Amino acid sequence: MKDFYPDFIENKPAKKSYRSIFKWGAKDVYKHPNIRMFKMLKEQLNMSDDDFTNILSEGNDVIELKNQEVKISSECVEDIKNIAGVDNVSIDSYDRVKYSHGQTVEEALALRDGEIAETSDIVVHPKNKLIVKEIVAYCNDKNIPVYVYGGGSSVNLGFKPVKGGITLVMKTHMNKVIELNEENQTVTVESGIFGPDYENILNNAKEIYGTKRDYTCGHFPQSFEFSTVGGWIAALGSGQQSSYYGDMYDIVLSQEYVTPKGNFSTIDFPATATGPKINDILKGSEGAFGVCVSATLKIFRYTPENRQRFSFIMPSWEDAVKTTKEISQGEFGNPAMLRISDAEETDVALKLYGVEGTIFDKIMSFKGYKKMERCLLLGHTEGEKGFAKNIKKRVKKIAKRNGGLSLTGYPVKKWEHGRFTDPYLRDSLQDFHITIDTLETSVKWDNIHQIHENVRSLIKKRPETICMTHASHFYPQGTNLYFIFIGKYKTNEEYKEFQKSIIEKICMEGGSLSHHHGVGKMIGPWMKKHLGNEQMEILKTLKKHFDPNNIMNPGGTLGLD
Amino acid sequence: MKDFYPDFIENKPAKKSYRSIFKWGAKDVYKHPNIRMFKMLKEQLNMSDDDFTNILSEGNDVIELKNQEVKISSECVEDIKNIAGVDNVSIDSYDRVKYSHGQTVEEALALRDGEIAETSDIVVHPKNKLIVKEIVAYCNDKNIPVYVYGGGSSVNLGFKPVKGGITLVMKTHMNKVIELNEENQTVTVESGIFGPDYENILNNAKEIYGTKRDYTCGHFPQSFEFSTVGGWIAALGSGQQSSYYGDMYDIVLSQEYVTPKGNFSTIDFPATATGPKINDILKGSEGAFGVCVSATLKIFRYTPENRQRFSFIMPSWEDAVKTTKEISQGEFGNPAMLRISDAEETDVALKLYGVEGTIFDKIMSFKGYKKMERCLLLGHTEGEKGFAKNIKKRVKKIAKRNGGLSLTGYPVKKWEHGRFTDPYLRDSLQDFHITIDTLETSVKWDNIHQIHENVRSLIKKRPETICMTHASHFYPQGTNLYFIFIGKYKTNEEYKEFQKSIIEKICMEGGSLSHHHGVGKMIGPWMKKHLGNEQMEILKTLKKHFDPNNIMNPGGTLGLD
Repeated sequence: MKDFYPDFIENKPAKKSYRSIFKWGAKDVYKHPNIRMFKMLKEQLNMSDDDFTNILSEGNDVIELKNQEVKISSECVEDIKNIAGVDNVSIDSYDRVKYSHGQTVEEALALRDGEIAETSDIVVHPKNKLIVKEIVAYCNDKNIPVYVYGGGSSVNLGFKPVKGGITLVMKTHMNKVIELNEENQTVTVESGIFGPDYENILNNAKEIYGTKRDYTCGHFPQSFEFSTVGGWIAALGSGQQSSYYGDMYDIVLSQEYVTPKGNFSTIDFPATATGPKINDILKGSEGAFGVCVSATLKIFRYTPENRQRFSFIMPSWEDAVKTTKEISQGEFGNPAMLRISDAEETDVALKLYGVEGTIFDKIMSFKGYKKMERCLLLGHTEGEKGFAKNIKKRVKKIAKRNGGLSLTGYPVKKWEHGRFTDPYLRDSLQDFHITIDTLETSVKWDNIHQIHENVRSLIKKRPETICMTHASHFYPQGTNLYFIFIGKYKTNEEYKEFQKSIIEKICMEGGSLSHHHGVGKMIGPWMKKHLGNEQMEILKTLKKHFDPNNIMNPGGTLGLD
Repeated sequence: MKDFYPDFIENKPAKKSYRSIFKWGAKDVYKHPNIRMFKMLKEQLNMSDDDFTNILSEGNDVIELKNQEVKISSECVEDIKNIAGVDNVSIDSYDRVKYSHGQTVEEALALRDGEIAETSDIVVHPKNKLIVKEIVAYCNDKNIPVYVYGGGSSVNLGFKPVKGGITLVMKTHMNKVIELNEENQTVTVESGIFGPDYENILNNAKEIYGTKRDYTCGHFPQSFEFSTVGGWIAALGSGQQSSYYGDMYDIVLSQEYVTPKGNFSTIDFPATATGPKINDILKGSEGAFGVCVSATLKIFRYTPENRQRFSFIMPSWEDAVKTTKEISQGEFGNPAMLRISDAEETDVALKLYGVEGTIFDKIMSFKGYKKMERCLLLGHTEGEKGFAKNIKKRVKKIAKRNGGLSLTGYPVKKWEHGRFTDPYLRDSLQDFHITIDTLETSVKWDNIHQIHENVRSLIKKRPETICMTHASHFYPQGTNLYFIFIGKYKTNEEYKEFQKSIIEKICMEGGSLSHHHGVGKMIGPWMKKHLGNEQMEILKTLKKHFDPNNIMNPGGTLGLD
């Protein structure tokens, strides 16, 4: 008898359905747990095959917007149409719901149940920065809230229009490369450009621009395919290769900004000593100060042929942490991608990356790397060939000294293959009432173990809950911890309470409220506690400066209001 | 007959004299031009041997403070004594003059002539941060200006107490290492610690702290020996090895800050996504927001044995620029120190670094590297051995491809030997009425030649004026230009007018107002033009937030008031 495997949904969401809004990514792409992972889930979550036969709320009904009339006067709507062009303005219910929702788990849970949270009244697709300026000025004058939608991948209610008003959708028209400057190794783009479009142009710069070389943007967050440059900057994203290329904070040289207070471009010098840097003050402001309409970013030579891959199984999490710390502090340059999974995640990763059941699996066991103790370390390098090779050599030495066993570059290739597709798992699991979500934090080397243990133990205290953790962005001074927690919840409220308890725990243990997801309205309530009153007041002063009438992303962003 | 060589002053400045204040560095250390440089100066500045026989204003009179009574009431002075301790408060004339002057050329010129600019009324040497807090709170209450003196090496009237009040001298007591955290590779120091004390402790960490390794701070500005960590942060300094270690902006992880508005410590995570970074907002605020009492900084492994040195003579400035651009964009890691001198500076450098007259000189000429065309490129690497060696290998390849001739590591060693002593030349030249000063700017690769040519040609338009230029801090996107201009001026006014015309030119040509000297009160007047009104208003808003009564470094700092 063949093992049971669920009949996962693979059809496209129905047109104008709830599902078409909450489903991650491309509408016709799905990713399901493989058979090994399915079995693990069943066991860990105490589920039976039967639990995987009925799908209760697929969310394929056509959305219905009740009691949410457009609250903005029809004169205003006409004005906006006059500014932005009638084709670029919509008060259609579906559009309003679509552009009011991101990828926060609680949003998906609600939409599945046919519940619609606050929406904006008008959706506007600005054609260019002049229109953005006019709209922001108009809204400031009329006190109409303005929310900015980049790619819509926020996982913390980043652009949720809790006060109604207008949502500016940047991806529709404002998605062009403005200039590629090979001399300076910079590119200037409109903020609504998507990751793949941006990267494709850079990868083919020779052909498209007649440059001497091809380039890469160096920034590959997991949301890469469905997020925009503007969103990366607004929420301070980090790419999966940030240990070499830097975080988005490091990559942005200058921005053109539209605010209720005025419009300006910061200067794109690589460094200056002319007082506090305005460009940096804007980064991470999550739409609460204004709208980034374009940005100038560093680009990097595109040399995939130089990439060196490595993976190791380490005896324990302590050994894995020690190894990555030594790598990050080794002063031989950083691997671009580097990640370590704790024991529970390693167990799943070995299933996902095709190691379980292979000869490597046998060798690991034979050599005494114990299940639920051993930890996976993956990495690859970028940059010039000799540089990249030297890194691999040093990494090998350090990993072996700390008890590592090489698993070759194979699992890394598997990881690279699936690097952007894991988020698709969320919907497949949710179809069977399993909720997967993530929270992440920055840690220092001297508090990583405390935070890992204590946050993990809070999560594991809940019965039948999986907690997988990895660190994936490295600095000489520390790294991040990324907690993935999987469970079944009776109600959305139960889920949200649990999520809150984890955020609270991270905050209490001294982790940062976010390493690269941003804060949004979901984590905003903890900001004052995290930063302290004095520092919150600085952010509030800046907010008031740029946006005295509080029209930009109002309603809790960064805990500002 | 032996060639004439001037009888340069070598005696210690007289006690309590003007000279004891304006003289750079250690009181018993002098550095004079060598015979070759002396001859060059004489020729270029159209001077005779006779001009080098009479010293007009040595500045060795005891200072006299006329018409500058202490304007603060004696009750206030008593209050300050009660807060800071009577031994740590001075209203002595000499102290007031001393701690009111930095190393700006116009200050030295005035002091030589017995002219004393504005001074603060009281000099306070705070024992600890609690006293700083009390004093700032007291001064905020009474509207007394507060100026902060770190090491006193500002070259742009950074802490000049133009409004009188109190000068806090941080170096006297607040100069300790608070904690060395080897796990995180960080150190926390009081802001008044001097470079050498700081570096010595790190270099001997194993012995002092029982760490596993010795460390380096990685930040070596030319003022290193006489500047403090607090000053480095306040003015956004860059060390001579910044191309590898980063600028001070990159090195500071967190700060403890005292402001009229309140006191707080930023959080020392290596990265976060929790809104605009308060730590970065404080950097470069030049004492106008508050007082940095301590800071946590990145430290680096101390491995001088790995250093690889290289130098090349390049056919032209264009070739030198191209070479360093290719190095900086080569993605094999950056040399720590890298510098290129333009043709005029090369001419002097070859004299200074002992190349002129050697076999190398002959080879250069034989191979066609022409005087006043050829340009010197110097560099050395830091970091892990394999990493460092690979950089040297790549650099060699790039330099040779661009027509470079290796001059070995010898000139680099000479440069290293004199790296901190060149500023001593200023006083020796000034003794014979020759004024040497510097202005510097950030440039991008696509405007480096325009800025270099046009600023240089403005300087050279003045008769009998030497202009030497180098670039010494490198990024993939650009570098800096450092203009050294030497001339004779009839009056201080004439000098100041000339200096202003250069700043104006840099600004007009699109260079940054400063790459690493900071802005101070000297360049403040250009800030609005440089940043634009909108961005100046952001800085002013922050200023008002932290310091509503404008007591912190008032009188033109950063162009804020």
